[in-house]
Amino acid sequence: MNILFIMYDQLRFDYLSCAGHPHLHTPNFDRLAEMGVRFSEAYVQSPICGASRMSFYTGRYASSHGAQWNGFPLRVGEVTLGDHLRKLGMDSWLLGKTHMKVDAEGMTRLGLSPDTVIGARQSECGFDAFIRDDGLWGAGPDGFYDSKRSPYNEYLKSKGYDGDNPWADYANAGVDADGNMASGWMFMNADKQANIREEDSETPWLTSETIRFLDQAEGNWLAHVSFIKPHWPYIVPAPYHDMFGPNSVPAARRHATERTDPHPVYGAFMNNKIAQAFQRDEVREKVIPAYMGLIKQCDDQLGRLLDHLEATGRMEDTMIVVTSDHGDYLGDHWLGEKDLFHEPSVKIPLIIYDPRREADATRGTTCDALVESIDLAATFVEAGGGKVPGHIIEGRSLMPWLNGETPDEWRDFVISEYDYSVTPMRIALGVSADDARLFMVYDGRHKLIHAEGGFRPMLFDTLTDPDEFHDLGGQPGHEEVLAELYEKLSRWGRRNAQRVTRSDDDIEAMRGASARKGILPFLVDGSEVPEELTVKYRGPARQVHLQTEQDGHD
Amino acid sequence: MNILFIMYDQLRFDYLSCAGHPHLHTPNFDRLAEMGVRFSEAYVQSPICGASRMSFYTGRYASSHGAQWNGFPLRVGEVTLGDHLRKLGMDSWLLGKTHMKVDAEGMTRLGLSPDTVIGARQSECGFDAFIRDDGLWGAGPDGFYDSKRSPYNEYLKSKGYDGDNPWADYANAGVDADGNMASGWMFMNADKQANIREEDSETPWLTSETIRFLDQAEGNWLAHVSFIKPHWPYIVPAPYHDMFGPNSVPAARRHATERTDPHPVYGAFMNNKIAQAFQRDEVREKVIPAYMGLIKQCDDQLGRLLDHLEATGRMEDTMIVVTSDHGDYLGDHWLGEKDLFHEPSVKIPLIIYDPRREADATRGTTCDALVESIDLAATFVEAGGGKVPGHIIEGRSLMPWLNGETPDEWRDFVISEYDYSVTPMRIALGVSADDARLFMVYDGRHKLIHAEGGFRPMLFDTLTDPDEFHDLGGQPGHEEVLAELYEKLSRWGRRNAQRVTRSDDDIEAMRGASARKGILPFLVDGSEVPEELTVKYRGPARQVHLQTEQDGHD
Repeated sequence: MNILFIMYDQLRFDYLSCAGHPHLHTPNFDRLAEMGVRFSEAYVQSPICGASRMSFYTGRYASSHGAQWNGFPLRVGEVTLGDHLRKLGMDSWLLGKTHMKVDAEGMTRLGLSPDTVIGARQSECGFDAFIRDDGLWGAGPDGFYDSKRSPYNEYLKSKGYDGDNPWADYANAGVDADGNMASGWMFMNADKQANIREEDSETPWLTSETIRFLDQAEGNWLAHVSFIKPHWPYIVPAPYHDMFGPNSVPAARRHATERTDPHPVYGAFMNNKIAQAFQRDEVREKVIPAYMGLIKQCDDQLGRLLDHLEATGRMEDTMIVVTSDHGDYLGDHWLGEKDLFHEPSVKIPLIIYDPRREADATRGTTCDALVESIDLAATFVEAGGGKVPGHIIEGRSLMPWLNGETPDEWRDFVISEYDYSVTPMRIALGVSADDARLFMVYDGRHKLIHAEGGFRPMLFDTLTDPDEFHDLGGQPGHEEVLAELYEKLSRWGRRNAQRVTRSDDDIEAMRGASARKGILPFLVDGSEVPEELTVKYRGPARQVHLQTEQDGHD
Repeated sequence: MNILFIMYDQLRFDYLSCAGHPHLHTPNFDRLAEMGVRFSEAYVQSPICGASRMSFYTGRYASSHGAQWNGFPLRVGEVTLGDHLRKLGMDSWLLGKTHMKVDAEGMTRLGLSPDTVIGARQSECGFDAFIRDDGLWGAGPDGFYDSKRSPYNEYLKSKGYDGDNPWADYANAGVDADGNMASGWMFMNADKQANIREEDSETPWLTSETIRFLDQAEGNWLAHVSFIKPHWPYIVPAPYHDMFGPNSVPAARRHATERTDPHPVYGAFMNNKIAQAFQRDEVREKVIPAYMGLIKQCDDQLGRLLDHLEATGRMEDTMIVVTSDHGDYLGDHWLGEKDLFHEPSVKIPLIIYDPRREADATRGTTCDALVESIDLAATFVEAGGGKVPGHIIEGRSLMPWLNGETPDEWRDFVISEYDYSVTPMRIALGVSADDARLFMVYDGRHKLIHAEGGFRPMLFDTLTDPDEFHDLGGQPGHEEVLAELYEKLSRWGRRNAQRVTRSDDDIEAMRGASARKGILPFLVDGSEVPEELTVKYRGPARQVHLQTEQDGHD
């Protein structure tokens, strides 16, 4: 079996028609959901690109792999999906974005060079890069945000788009009434059409690359096809730029009570620049139609890809997974971007089409088990015919759910983490880098958000308050629920996350091994163990070297 | 400054005269204590050789480095003391034991070979091996316990001791009345003299190697001089074998109440073979005099080393640290060996002589601050002139204490961990490998031992019960103390242990950097940021590529 592991960036779980969006019709996402299982309670390990992705690619929690924010390098030697799958004879290809930063210091310490196969995989998060492009080609006074080469910018240049950075000047800019460049960075320009031929914009380009990959792929493979969109800059080429308008924009899910004595961390995020922007209705009315247009374009391109798979017979041997690295507040809860743990940010879309006959029973169904993004790595290892290495991968395979089975024991809570040490909010709150960390524990009803640094907890009851407007963390009467959730967090904090060099099977094999290698530190007289284990310590002493107390040192 | 980091193996904190032993006179340990500071409340991160040592050598908790038991490889790339010190221009040499197992699978995955400098350091826990000998040359039906070469066995052979394994046949065996080999593995032989010239036994041999090292050492260096003794096999050459007798053996610190309805994990350990052996008075009366003789020999050899340092002027530029990797129950609490968290097992001797003038004020004093073994790595980095990399090293420098300063904030609890997954006790208790883990939290008065797997906690009040006989964990009335200690454990469990690729200084430098590289996802109209950051997005659009809705795809 092959695996097409498709990720969109910043795609909200509820911006698909199969997930109930009232205005956005996504027939191709829905088509995949009809063929497979849609997981309606799937959460990311961290609501930020880099940290979330490193969890997807390692199957490990953010505080286990340590790359807890964008640009925190993934430590050299951290075991990735590619390492696991190659052991099973599967190649592991990358097309698009990972947001992985190489641990250059660690590479140097270990003498690894990125121009070797091993070094290249260490630099690419374990993947072989068919095409790597992180999709954020911002440039400012200090140069490009991303110092790597951009295959997408190279493509644009080959198509005649001029300048250093056609990504910024064409794909992510429109034209204003005076004929000036209207940057997509500015929300006021979000309703303009991007200054690019639609088929040259990012999503069609990577889809074409994927089809090119599929047409030449051999052997067993996983291909991680990772689109930058519908991530900002929020601007989309025609015809998608005016498919939706202010009337298509759902009302912001926000409540005045949220601004009354908010939790200090939430308060700091509500005061940041992007939150303030999204608190303005005119921003939402410009940005959300563009965001919806970007998703509509993603849906059309997904259809193109599915058609190609069908036409080439690959539907029968290819598992297809569609997901996102986190959501987008879009003004809900008075916030923009992602970062915190309300559902629009931390919950993700997740659809898995599994071609195996065993999965026939679940096609077109929805599964509401608590799923974590780290479960995909485990699922892929099992799909590749392997045994999930539970001492490394912390997620659990979703295969039973795909087969219509309910596992005996499934997790009763999900965890997500966020490290805001790099942000201005840490400064505003006056906490140390180590204390600028948040943990979410969600048990399917109650959601605890714990903030280091001495803050009170946040608590939501999603049964009585599905919109998460009423923070119960500072109110009396919830001590028991808080204690239960804190107990879960504490248990999780003690998890066995770093014993990565010894599997449970290794441990079984170690039991008793040292006695058979002559380590016998429990013998009174030798009668305690079988003679075979002590036979080496019997027999006549060799007297030639025997010293008596009378001998002096020589 | 140079650093002589001396470790004895399984040396109990209270088997030194400076620590109050009633019968054992250790004038050379006492001499060092007079020159430096003795830390009376020093604890290991895990009361087992391998895990404890990996914490010493990385400055990280056992569940942070993951090598939680003997023979669990230290993951490739884990940053060690040697890595930190080499950055400061200090060599980091090993003489003796580390109990480090190489992560061979990780080395292969990264293409590292042990016959390169980098690969050799990865294989030797970051040290350059002047001489590596782990000192346990047991051999049985499945071969040698340790597959490496043994410089000590080679030395013995060069001195004429015959056979495959003179370590076992001479250094660790006596001769019985019939002229047969009397293996030191058997406690009944512990009162015999080892069948070896005293100066050829392990401690004098490694002391001689250390002197050889000192006489040729150049530049700045740390030398980790790591003796196998007084670790078992408990047998010692003349004249040390009969310096002590049954009258020198302190009464076992144990109480009938400990055997009444013990905590299940404690109960399982009390039932293991070594505990059962040490519950017999005749075993204690044979073993403890030998153990004391081994320590007496260590003391004499320490004196020899100190004399050499004095004679060569190295006392003025060499920090000397003496410690152990854990203690030895010796029948206390009905137990043998180490493994659990009573003081005889988890507390270690720790004496630091610091030649700097700043440390003059504290010479000959005792410090009762709560110290963890991981503090040494931090201390050594500071002694080497570096800034402690707090994102990697979890310990804290002891330099303030050496200087007679009381840090503003010092830790208010110590942690120790133990993974018993490989032991028969796990099978007896019927717990999974992941649940076979114990955590100690000690705040200077109360000691909590938490066992995974659904067991009740153990709790001791060392103020009212300094001998730790009365386990309060199952009794009512201690809920508040338990809650406090569990809160500490939970806080520790959430520690930021894996963000090893980004220092706090890196994080400061990252703040705002992306905006200066053109990542501006918060602009309504560009007025929110200085013009210099947005200037790239201004200017006339290049119309040549502008598409209108009327354009079709081509």
